[in-house]
Amino acid sequence: MPHMIIRGISVSHIQSISTALIADLAEVCSCGIDNFMLECLPTVSIFQGEVCDTYPFIEVGWFERGQEIRDAYAEVLTKHVMSLGIPEVEIAFKVYREDSYYWNGKLI
Amino acid sequence: MPHMIIRGISVSHIQSISTALIADLAEVCSCGIDNFMLECLPTVSIFQGEVCDTYPFIEVGWFERGQEIRDAYAEVLTKHVMSLGIPEVEIAFKVYREDSYYWNGKLI
Amino acid sequence: MPHMIIRGISVSHIQSISTALIADLAEVCSCGIDNFMLECLPTVSIFQGEVCDTYPFIEVGWFERGQEIRDAYAEVLTKHVMSLGIPEVEIAFKVYREDSYYWNGKLI
Repeated sequence: MPHMIIRGISVSHIQSISTALIADLAEVCSCGIDNFMLECLPTVSIFQGEVCDTYPFIEVGWFERGQEIRDAYAEVLTKHVMSLGIPEVEIAFKVYREDSYYWNGKLI
Repeated sequence: MPHMIIRGISVSHIQSISTALIADLAEVCSCGIDNFMLECLPTVSIFQGEVCDTYPFIEVGWFERGQEIRDAYAEVLTKHVMSLGIPEVEIAFKVYREDSYYWNGKLI
Repeated sequence: MPHMIIRGISVSHIQSISTALIADLAEVCSCGIDNFMLECLPTVSIFQGEVCDTYPFIEVGWFERGQEIRDAYAEVLTKHVMSLGIPEVEIAFKVYREDSYYWNGKLI
């Protein structure tokens, strides 16, 4: 954790920013780079009867860290995505409950 | 937004209902058709050792709009899915927090 | 319901444990085996510029059942995953709201 589930941005694009992005996010979160997961999720988007490009969207799954760190995290993530020439991206945070998250069968 | 992440219904089925569906949903939500995203998510379902059809399921991600609009939204969405000859569909709504949703790095 | 959305574990692995797993989960939940959905979700994970294996992760979507059943559910699920020789797995539970979950257009 944090998990980033990415739609509408190509694997090669994410590969090209992954190292610098995770270094910056680790600084925002004051944690090691091993904690971050970047996963591209393939979906097929449809509008007005046609298959279309998927809108760039990233869902971040993590434990609550407060508004200040969330804002900084979104800013860093957006900056790296926009560095790819992508003009728009939306990011939503999903908070895991600490009483409902298990590592190897035990609450963490 | 709203996002609709669709499992267990084919892309061609969604294409065939997309225009009328989004027109009806825009009326329910009193907003423009450009706000809606329909995304088919491929999964592989398994039951009793075998790969099987995925149960039709739609997760709607949006900001809270209250029970009345939610009920109407689910009714419209169900009606269009069933018009495809699909006998059962489940719909769950996922509410985004307004302090945790960013467009181009800024809270919206 | 419950839905299990599985990342980072192969379809054939899930096939091989599915029958015994669901029998055990049905006992934990005191319900029939027909309620359970196992769905493998393909994602492409990226670390340090390279595509890498996706970390084994299962998101369980259900209605709230309390800590005791949740702990037992996670324990059973973990035990079956580890029986495949997979050394680590994380499980997060996502709670559906009863006022926001529809079967065929009606709240269930």
